[in-house]
Amino acid sequence: MDIKPGKLLSQINSPEDLKKIDQSDLVRVCEDLREYIIDHVSVFGGHFGASLGVVELTVALHYVFNTPHDQIVWDVGHQAYGHKILTGRKEDFKSNRLYKGLSGFPKRSESEYDAFGVGHSSTSISAALGMAFASEHLKVEKQHIAVIGDGAMTGGMAFEAMNHAGDSNKDMIIILNDNCMSIDPNVGALKDYLTDITTSHTYNRFRDDVWKILGKVSKFGPNAQEIVGNIETSLKSFLLKQSNLFESLKLRYFGPVDGHDVNHLVHVLNDLKGIKGPKILHCVTVKGKGYHQAEQDQTKWHAPGKFDKITGEIHKKVEDQPKPPKYQDVFGHTIVELAKDDHTIMGVTPAMPSGSSLNIMMNEMPDRAFDVGIAEQHAVTFSAGMATQGLTPFCNIYSTFMQRAYDQVVHDVCIQKLPVVFCLDRAGLVGADGPTHHGAYDIAYMRCLPHMVVSAPMDEIEMRNLMYTASKHKEGPFTIRYPRGNGVKVNWKVPFEMLQVGKGRVIKEGSDLAILTIGHIGNYAVETTARLEQEGANIAHYDMRYVKPLDEEMLHEVFTKFNRVITVEDGCLSGGFGSAILEFMIDHQYTSQVTRLGIPDRVVEHGTQEELHKECQYDADSIYQTAVKMMEISNIPV
Amino acid sequence: MDIKPGKLLSQINSPEDLKKIDQSDLVRVCEDLREYIIDHVSVFGGHFGASLGVVELTVALHYVFNTPHDQIVWDVGHQAYGHKILTGRKEDFKSNRLYKGLSGFPKRSESEYDAFGVGHSSTSISAALGMAFASEHLKVEKQHIAVIGDGAMTGGMAFEAMNHAGDSNKDMIIILNDNCMSIDPNVGALKDYLTDITTSHTYNRFRDDVWKILGKVSKFGPNAQEIVGNIETSLKSFLLKQSNLFESLKLRYFGPVDGHDVNHLVHVLNDLKGIKGPKILHCVTVKGKGYHQAEQDQTKWHAPGKFDKITGEIHKKVEDQPKPPKYQDVFGHTIVELAKDDHTIMGVTPAMPSGSSLNIMMNEMPDRAFDVGIAEQHAVTFSAGMATQGLTPFCNIYSTFMQRAYDQVVHDVCIQKLPVVFCLDRAGLVGADGPTHHGAYDIAYMRCLPHMVVSAPMDEIEMRNLMYTASKHKEGPFTIRYPRGNGVKVNWKVPFEMLQVGKGRVIKEGSDLAILTIGHIGNYAVETTARLEQEGANIAHYDMRYVKPLDEEMLHEVFTKFNRVITVEDGCLSGGFGSAILEFMIDHQYTSQVTRLGIPDRVVEHGTQEELHKECQYDADSIYQTAVKMMEISNIPV
Repeated sequence: MDIKPGKLLSQINSPEDLKKIDQSDLVRVCEDLREYIIDHVSVFGGHFGASLGVVELTVALHYVFNTPHDQIVWDVGHQAYGHKILTGRKEDFKSNRLYKGLSGFPKRSESEYDAFGVGHSSTSISAALGMAFASEHLKVEKQHIAVIGDGAMTGGMAFEAMNHAGDSNKDMIIILNDNCMSIDPNVGALKDYLTDITTSHTYNRFRDDVWKILGKVSKFGPNAQEIVGNIETSLKSFLLKQSNLFESLKLRYFGPVDGHDVNHLVHVLNDLKGIKGPKILHCVTVKGKGYHQAEQDQTKWHAPGKFDKITGEIHKKVEDQPKPPKYQDVFGHTIVELAKDDHTIMGVTPAMPSGSSLNIMMNEMPDRAFDVGIAEQHAVTFSAGMATQGLTPFCNIYSTFMQRAYDQVVHDVCIQKLPVVFCLDRAGLVGADGPTHHGAYDIAYMRCLPHMVVSAPMDEIEMRNLMYTASKHKEGPFTIRYPRGNGVKVNWKVPFEMLQVGKGRVIKEGSDLAILTIGHIGNYAVETTARLEQEGANIAHYDMRYVKPLDEEMLHEVFTKFNRVITVEDGCLSGGFGSAILEFMIDHQYTSQVTRLGIPDRVVEHGTQEELHKECQYDADSIYQTAVKMMEISNIPV
Repeated sequence: MDIKPGKLLSQINSPEDLKKIDQSDLVRVCEDLREYIIDHVSVFGGHFGASLGVVELTVALHYVFNTPHDQIVWDVGHQAYGHKILTGRKEDFKSNRLYKGLSGFPKRSESEYDAFGVGHSSTSISAALGMAFASEHLKVEKQHIAVIGDGAMTGGMAFEAMNHAGDSNKDMIIILNDNCMSIDPNVGALKDYLTDITTSHTYNRFRDDVWKILGKVSKFGPNAQEIVGNIETSLKSFLLKQSNLFESLKLRYFGPVDGHDVNHLVHVLNDLKGIKGPKILHCVTVKGKGYHQAEQDQTKWHAPGKFDKITGEIHKKVEDQPKPPKYQDVFGHTIVELAKDDHTIMGVTPAMPSGSSLNIMMNEMPDRAFDVGIAEQHAVTFSAGMATQGLTPFCNIYSTFMQRAYDQVVHDVCIQKLPVVFCLDRAGLVGADGPTHHGAYDIAYMRCLPHMVVSAPMDEIEMRNLMYTASKHKEGPFTIRYPRGNGVKVNWKVPFEMLQVGKGRVIKEGSDLAILTIGHIGNYAVETTARLEQEGANIAHYDMRYVKPLDEEMLHEVFTKFNRVITVEDGCLSGGFGSAILEFMIDHQYTSQVTRLGIPDRVVEHGTQEELHKECQYDADSIYQTAVKMMEISNIPV
């Protein structure tokens, strides 16, 4: 399906083309761009609301600034579709987020207009400030612009960067794209503060106070109120400036401005270009702007999948029969079940209530489940604090985002042996979100930590039971990693069962070769062993369940019985699950031949999970090929 | 040597004893406590200035609050000596920071008064907030107090926690201990802001402005100034509140108060006890208070070592002959040398200019070396931003603190393949600072990342040359890890030499067994091989230099030639250097017997580095024992 851009957009293949357009036509350019995004996302899927919210800002930025010489860093980056379309990627945009296609995020290797690769939140100010220092050092005149949402502004590193930027006095522009949302509605004191500025509560409170006080200066009678009028006018801008959090950090604050008035934005940005030092422009926008349904339910329309752009109906695959649930929903429903029986259980998410399905608990038990904002570091230590008081927090963080709280896991949880349960959603290759979002490293970075239990379920029932087991494990932290997407069992709501820590299970006995798997990826091995069984080979399959502690009894059995072993994991090969198996084997002086399958030591790009598993050679067919090859080499008849 | 406490302190073995003392005597208690700290640190060493600065605050807190029921979380914790002395550890205090003795930081397993274990910065608000949520949920009445310095306040997670705390409306007290210092003078916009509050510049600016504006209201003539007086008085508190960064985050702000007026502190804390919701008390203190020299040079007296308390002379060991330098100084001098020849080289440290010795470059090239504050996350992405512009930043972060910026290393540097050089000081076991500061995990968490080079020098010359090599390596990130303390070479300032990436070196040829080492710990192996040589065994020793990429050619040689191999590392065994060697060996189907020596999978406590290496069995004698045992088992005559 070929989507045609509108008349003005069809003339724009680069920011240079955009600059040729008369400013009076920019509103129409915005209409074309918005339409083009809606047309594409409705047909191909992808992130939606965020890009619609910054259409005018995107057009204004490329109209005013000399990109790519001037550099725009888009924080998080899922709002950068308009930016991609205006910077030479209009035709390719239909490949957005597809295997071998455009990335869903800005990416340096994709375009010189993508000044900094993004995906995770709150990095833009640091990156742009580094660029500004570099430009000054290299004596290059260029503008550095960070575009950051109000949600991303709650991430601690944004504050660290502002503290440095304000002090450095380098030339840079921070554009605060304030829509009161991250994926879910933004939370925290900062959000209220920004609303306060926008609706001028601060100023209004000040004015009321002046009136009250001046009322007391009764001897001036009616004159007092005239004086008030003068003070009001004269002090308004002064007060807004003085009472401003950003001004406290020595950033010059401008705004708030209407982020959907493209002509005003052009005007303001032109002004800011000439002002020295670090400055912040506060733009108020509406996520999903211009598409009614998306404005109304911003969480649902963050990344709605494909939809009918006329009716706004989101296409759902019609299932003939019940489908296995998503792992995240198993988490969401199970924690509520557990919490009903155990009053110590609490739920914590850093800004991912719908992504983690913790929103189920937040709705049912609002006093026991918390969205703490985009603040992974705080989420972990906050959980540790609760654990010191005898509670059992389940801290749910995507594997890739847990990297943001690694020190807190080490320093605040593991060293203190606190019983925090870490539920790492989106572990392994995540698919269309690509390299920034793959949960590739968690097994390696978690299993080296003292006191940490590291586990992964092969199906929904194991997921439930690992959560149950974790809730009873009071001796220290407990990690459960599980993938993006659906499991394999329709009837998964079975009674809870303890899964002894450090004990795996035999999926299939065998004699020719053993396959050891961890987590959901074990289902590929089930296919493989069945296929090989039909071909006459007798392959054993062990679901190890725990990377740490390993089931040593089972491994002694494996290495005593099998000369050929394959390990499979949806995680990095360097230092991962297979590596732990090798450590055991060599420490105990076994000499089996072992082939490790998993994520190779390179950046894996985006695509569907199946495409990527195949590319990385740990899908069912690759496991099959590996097994066949190992058996041939060993000259043992298959 | 036995140190006697003063008369009042001698009566205090717990906060209960303290509460029996009349408030009029608290000033004398503070004098006793200060004296006791000075007496101990001068004789035994340890952190100094920080604890002196909070003597009055410590006494006031334990006088007012009902510890341990009420809970105090000391941020970082090296200021908690007074707290330890008042809470039952007075007699044991002489064992502070010694092997098997008291920890230099609060530690939950040491005392019920230590509500939360600390060491790294900026965790206290998150932890105390978690406790406050828990107490509310459990319906327990207790007070939760976080004591945090102005330096720690620049760490992003403190901001994340305040954003949540302000929104949560839970009862907690944050005490901002503002002394304008971390270890080195605090930096950043926040510091200026706090000074601004303290000296009331904000208020003064406001007043001036009102005068100016009212001056224009000329028709009121002299009356105007009287009105101004009224406005001033009435609006002062209102304005201070409105213009306050903390109030922006919905924390009730109190202060600033003199942190050395113990009676006033008692009064204020008693008041705060009764006020609901999250609040912040701004205390202004002087680091090193009460010891003149320490007040004058706060960085030098952060942890001065042993000294003469009368003269203030810091004892330096008198060396008969020149001593090998500290690795940190090799870094500090070498980066200056390199930067003189290569204008792209820049230096970055998060608040450790003296600890890393980057202060040498900051003095010589102030435009090219930056202290960005306690802000590891920002430091890394700021470096990445510079690297995108063609610069070569050397980002120096202690191994243990690099955990705080792990996501930034993955997401902003490795995925984008940017040439940032990470110099990880204090890698391996660090000694007296103990578990929170050991740099145990960096090999495991770095080597799993794509595009990352991981190296470690065995001596100062290798350190220099690795830095030189890293500065030329433009293909991606480069990690150099090195230990706390001194090297082994006196004459180390030799001409630079490229050390080909992924190539190790043979220290000693041999035939009976091979020892593979990484980094400084290789010097133990030198002792071992010499000792075994004398006993008739012929042991080979390889300094691998690079954990990643491994020297595959060398390893093929090793595993072809040797059936017995020992790996030694000053890092964790799980997923570390030895583990990488096993991966290579099994991937290439070698079957040698390998024994891995390194940090075991448990929390290693504090002590000298030598004591800990011995305890963990990778000192020279342990390597010797391992080699002998392996050769005996193999029945090859030694």
